[in-house]
Amino acid sequence: MQTLTADILPQTIRQRPADSYKGTYGHIVLIGGNQNFGGAIIMASTAAVYAGAGLVTTLTDPSNQGSLHARLPEAMFADYHDSDLLTSLVQGANVVVIGPGLGTDATALGVLKRVFGLVTAQQTLVVDGSALTMVATHDLNFPDVPLVLTPHQMEWQRVSGVKIADQTEAANRTVVDQLKATVVLKSHHTQIYTANATYENPLGTPAQATGGMGDTLAGMVGGFIAQFKPTDQAVLAAVYSHSAIAEELAQTQYVVLPHQIATALPTFMKQHAAK
Amino acid sequence: MQTLTADILPQTIRQRPADSYKGTYGHIVLIGGNQNFGGAIIMASTAAVYAGAGLVTTLTDPSNQGSLHARLPEAMFADYHDSDLLTSLVQGANVVVIGPGLGTDATALGVLKRVFGLVTAQQTLVVDGSALTMVATHDLNFPDVPLVLTPHQMEWQRVSGVKIADQTEAANRTVVDQLKATVVLKSHHTQIYTANATYENPLGTPAQATGGMGDTLAGMVGGFIAQFKPTDQAVLAAVYSHSAIAEELAQTQYVVLPHQIATALPTFMKQHAAK
Amino acid sequence: MQTLTADILPQTIRQRPADSYKGTYGHIVLIGGNQNFGGAIIMASTAAVYAGAGLVTTLTDPSNQGSLHARLPEAMFADYHDSDLLTSLVQGANVVVIGPGLGTDATALGVLKRVFGLVTAQQTLVVDGSALTMVATHDLNFPDVPLVLTPHQMEWQRVSGVKIADQTEAANRTVVDQLKATVVLKSHHTQIYTANATYENPLGTPAQATGGMGDTLAGMVGGFIAQFKPTDQAVLAAVYSHSAIAEELAQTQYVVLPHQIATALPTFMKQHAAK
Amino acid sequence: MQTLTADILPQTIRQRPADSYKGTYGHIVLIGGNQNFGGAIIMASTAAVYAGAGLVTTLTDPSNQGSLHARLPEAMFADYHDSDLLTSLVQGANVVVIGPGLGTDATALGVLKRVFGLVTAQQTLVVDGSALTMVATHDLNFPDVPLVLTPHQMEWQRVSGVKIADQTEAANRTVVDQLKATVVLKSHHTQIYTANATYENPLGTPAQATGGMGDTLAGMVGGFIAQFKPTDQAVLAAVYSHSAIAEELAQTQYVVLPHQIATALPTFMKQHAAK
Repeated sequence: MQTLTADILPQTIRQRPADSYKGTYGHIVLIGGNQNFGGAIIMASTAAVYAGAGLVTTLTDPSNQGSLHARLPEAMFADYHDSDLLTSLVQGANVVVIGPGLGTDATALGVLKRVFGLVTAQQTLVVDGSALTMVATHDLNFPDVPLVLTPHQMEWQRVSGVKIADQTEAANRTVVDQLKATVVLKSHHTQIYTANATYENPLGTPAQATGGMGDTLAGMVGGFIAQFKPTDQAVLAAVYSHSAIAEELAQTQYVVLPHQIATALPTFMKQHAAK
Repeated sequence: MQTLTADILPQTIRQRPADSYKGTYGHIVLIGGNQNFGGAIIMASTAAVYAGAGLVTTLTDPSNQGSLHARLPEAMFADYHDSDLLTSLVQGANVVVIGPGLGTDATALGVLKRVFGLVTAQQTLVVDGSALTMVATHDLNFPDVPLVLTPHQMEWQRVSGVKIADQTEAANRTVVDQLKATVVLKSHHTQIYTANATYENPLGTPAQATGGMGDTLAGMVGGFIAQFKPTDQAVLAAVYSHSAIAEELAQTQYVVLPHQIATALPTFMKQHAAK
Repeated sequence: MQTLTADILPQTIRQRPADSYKGTYGHIVLIGGNQNFGGAIIMASTAAVYAGAGLVTTLTDPSNQGSLHARLPEAMFADYHDSDLLTSLVQGANVVVIGPGLGTDATALGVLKRVFGLVTAQQTLVVDGSALTMVATHDLNFPDVPLVLTPHQMEWQRVSGVKIADQTEAANRTVVDQLKATVVLKSHHTQIYTANATYENPLGTPAQATGGMGDTLAGMVGGFIAQFKPTDQAVLAAVYSHSAIAEELAQTQYVVLPHQIATALPTFMKQHAAK
Repeated sequence: MQTLTADILPQTIRQRPADSYKGTYGHIVLIGGNQNFGGAIIMASTAAVYAGAGLVTTLTDPSNQGSLHARLPEAMFADYHDSDLLTSLVQGANVVVIGPGLGTDATALGVLKRVFGLVTAQQTLVVDGSALTMVATHDLNFPDVPLVLTPHQMEWQRVSGVKIADQTEAANRTVVDQLKATVVLKSHHTQIYTANATYENPLGTPAQATGGMGDTLAGMVGGFIAQFKPTDQAVLAAVYSHSAIAEELAQTQYVVLPHQIATALPTFMKQHAAK
């Protein structure tokens, strides 16, 4: 297992070409936020915007439209019950993030299945949170597309069948290779399994142990993938940045709020981008 | 009566263990905020989140969903009219705070009675504001669980039957012992009655004399209890922190806004946590 | 005509007594904000809260509930269509501000007439904006209570019958004495007519010439009256503070946003309060 | 083609006369923001307010009322489905901006046609975003009024019939002269075509390449036109300011958020206004 270092940042966060436009930086669609967990998809979308994604659309329950725009006018909104709109938005995206605050009811399952049926090999799909739980519960197959999973250890147990106590690198690797996915296994020291290697994130602070941190990370992962190649490197840089910002904030804060990590991104990324 | 000092802070606000996760810091449910007083439960919830509670769910009138998420995406939302959801959320919580902006109508009374019937000895219940008034008006019995009450003097008169002019330490102590509750009696110099001792808070500024201060304190009390043991010490540290932050802000402000106390918590707690 | 000076500030903004509570600083009710002009009553309410009023309730169209709490959880909300609630809230207030964003339709007129019928000599009524226009249009009589009017020159023309070109001190004084009101006549250099004297505000900057400044002033006037005696002095201090803050901000800003004046109040008032 | 310099700023951003009021700085109406793109009209309106426009009214879908006021209480709201209200507001405006987030459905088309039929030669009309697309798709004629278009290159292709690869100065000039419009052709180095000259903006940073930048520019263009004469100079100063602020922010940020440009306006304009 390799230990991530700050070197991943300038290797990944490129200097933007002068002659570029918003389309250069991807169209990311984030899907989640039912009537109870709207904050989750707002935090994920905020992270995607502040990471620099070119265009961001949030597919969520309509009860979240107002609070989304009140916090983040830069995001576009769509009602995830509207199948035609969902279809066209997913088809037009480079990156699809599904899961933050999605819940596990019939609506959520319907949305998840539809998205799994729509994405293609030209797109990257990030699956997070309750979407992972539903895959396990309903025995769904992940679509055969570039795939990133961001489970915490219990969600990974559900998806992989490997109990938390048995989640060794070897055991995880076997499942990762079967799934043909990049897996971000979130824990005290998050591990990232790519096709060719396994990495451990040495950073992380208990000040991050608060609801919404995972949603913010999922949005960052999506936002980095939308901009930076190859995908695995984008994932590594997102994970490292998330913890590095948290550690900086934890110098002066007992607890770090997830939305603070998102708003710190533009400055952090400028400091660590390739010169 | 003992006078609180800043020593209560490092004795209570522990250094977080490196290998911890959001579940380590409790799941707190806050119940209140009718169609008129939504701001109260938003302020209480904000205080709980910024104090560092691991997971925070706000049970309130649905008209407050949007403003809750617009201010605080970190909180989860539930409609307090949904009995099944209320039941499962209360049952899954470590700490329940009821009262801020709850009002006293039939809906509020129904919610209060239901919550009183659900909580168990494994949970801590914080009762604040109009919930206290309803206990007195409708002659309810507090449930036999770890209990914290946060009345101002008039609410205490209603609950205890002791008139404000007669609220001596001895008179209050008699009722406190009957109720088997920890009581935070809010006034110019707030008193805290625990099972074994009585404390006076020497801090406090008239710049705090503004609507919403009590709601913020109730949320802080809940957030501290969710993280720190024993409960009485958590309550003492929350009361002390609330006033200490207000005094700091009042150095440069004629009035201190309640939400400012919440947002100052992460930095204040870092400064005063155990090293 | 006397020219206001900064002396009015420490003469009016008292040091708060240590043993005080939110009730000491008044309950102010602000009424306005129809479906089109909700921002106006939000700005006025914000000014009242940040000026230090003890309790603030905003009576407005229900479509403004969410945005009010999203910006200002410290305010309580009530639907101004609810006559019973309006009645009890107005009866329980020390100060009533009516007009910001109220509009001039049938609902607005009904609310205005009801409020005029409810207020008593123990309360102070501040009449602003479209409420003044309706008084003129519908030939209403102001109630015989302590009364503060905050017209701009065109509104004063409507109420007083004195054309803008003819609004000399003498002409204004005649009407002011008939109305038995304190009148804040807003213009480049605002004039304040009290029962015994006339004052001119020497401050003011064209950076203030933007929609919402008057709404903010109305809220400040209400917030100062709720706390400081006598009423005329509170009005003078509010007018002076409003312009003094604007001038400070205009040192570095081409335009001053009305909400910025409200948020600057706590610090400004601390600097200029009696020592 | 002339290259814009910072000289355009003090030439345009005048010192405000001491004796002025909000009416001096124009009434601007911004029209856009359907149920999916509400953030766009919020960003445009924010830019108009922070640029210093005297009065700002936002005509949009009613689902955006709450988030508009939550972010920007200084703006007034109107439902763009209300034809009578739209008519009176457009007739009372000095400047009309149509397009940000308007979309291209039947409602949008109806609103666009109605506005085109209402504006007069005494007003300036700014046409942006999807409004430009609809002009091309439905073969509409622009009204014969002072006209500013703010297309990006693809929108200009649709409106002008000149393909992006063929958009030379000469080709563009021919169409501009036919349209009798001032055209802001947005690209890496934005070009501005007035009746008499063509300008290139030397500024701009790839940190600006994010959704919402154009909406913010449209609002700034409207806000500058409302205050500064002649119109062409106002447009040039708005374009230059937009990029200059972005470049400043990009010194320390990897990506610049559109709303940050708006909130930086008051300070930027003060620094560069005529002394």
